[in-house]
Formats: sequence, C-alpha cells, structure tokens
Amino acid sequence: MEGTLNMIGMGLAGTGAAIGIGLIFAAYVNGVARQPEAQRVLQPIALLGFALAEAVFILAIVFAFVL
Amino acid sequence: MEGTLNMIGMGLAGTGAAIGIGLIFAAYVNGVARQPEAQRVLQPIALLGFALAEAVFILAIVFAFVL
Amino acid sequence: MEGTLNMIGMGLAGTGAAIGIGLIFAAYVNGVARQPEAQRVLQPIALLGFALAEAVFILAIVFAFVL
Repeated sequence: MEGTLNMIGMGLAGTGAAIGIGLIFAAYVNGVARQPEAQRVLQPIALLGFALAEAVFILAIVFAFVL
Repeated sequence: MEGTLNMIGMGLAGTGAAIGIGLIFAAYVNGVARQPEAQRVLQPIALLGFALAEAVFILAIVFAFVL
Repeated sequence: MEGTLNMIGMGLAGTGAAIGIGLIFAAYVNGVARQPEAQRVLQPIALLGFALAEAVFILAIVFAFVL
C-alpha cells in the first residue's frame, strides 16, 4: 500500500474549503441577481471570504509536508 | 503506509473550519446585498466569527504536533 | 504509520464545532442585517452559543490526552 495518510488529511481540508467557497459564491450570485448594482460592493467581500476559506486549504498543504 | 494519523485529524478540523467560514461570509454577502449601508456594522461581526471558527483549525494544528 | 487515532476523534469533534460556530455567526450576521438595532441583544446570545459549541471541542482535546 503506497501513498501517505497526509494526503487524506489534505483532501479532507480541501472538502471543507471547496464547500465554503461554494457557499460564499452562491450568496454572491444570489445578491447580484437580486440587486445588479450591488456587484461593486459585493465583489470584494466575496473575494475576501474566498481568500480566508482557501487559506485553510493552503495551511493544510503546508502541514502535509511538515508533518 | 507513510504519513501520520494526526494529519487526518487536522484535515477534519479544517473541513469544519472552512465550511463555517463559508457560512459566515455567505451570510455577510447576503446581508450587504440586502442593505448595503449595513456593511460597517456587519464587517466586524463576520471577522469575529471567522476568527473564532479559524481558532478551531489553529488549535487542531497545534495539537497535531503535540499529540 | 505514525500519529494517534485520538487525533482523528479530536478532528471529528472540531468539524462539528466549527460548522456549529459558522451556523451561529451566520444567523447573527443575518439578524443584525435585518435589524441593526438588535445587535445589543443578539451579541451575548451568539457568544453564548459559540462558547457552548467550542466546549465540545475543548472536551475532545482534553479526552484526546486522557484516553
């Protein structure tokens, strides 16, 4: 049996990161669909949320090499 | 089989943290889409929630090294 | 194979705790977005909910060492 258990942990963190990013962008799409003129305000919020959720996955990648 | 079981536990905590961050920012985007003038009030709440959800992941990283 | 199965159990508790914190703060953000004057009432409720959800994770950390 090859492979490393670290990859499973990294994949689990990726599961959550992708679901979280999906939730944020779904809300972004809904908000712009309701008020198209709000896109200018909502875009930085959605991108901030994306960066913070993605950071969880990036941290997991880093620690998959460290551990 | 290489790797450490601790990474799986860290990944599981990361799953929840990322989904939680996604939920918080989705609500933040929805709130600003409904009331753009509420962004000043909602931003610190969303960031507080992010910090508290991320703290679970940070704690898991720490204890992945300790255990 | 290194690491301990206790860390997986701790991670599973962290998954739920972080999702729960996310749900609480999402509802908090939604409530303040709908009625900004309700923040004074909602904040202690959200923080109480956070403490009770986090307590699950803290207990899991403790028992990961005990067991």
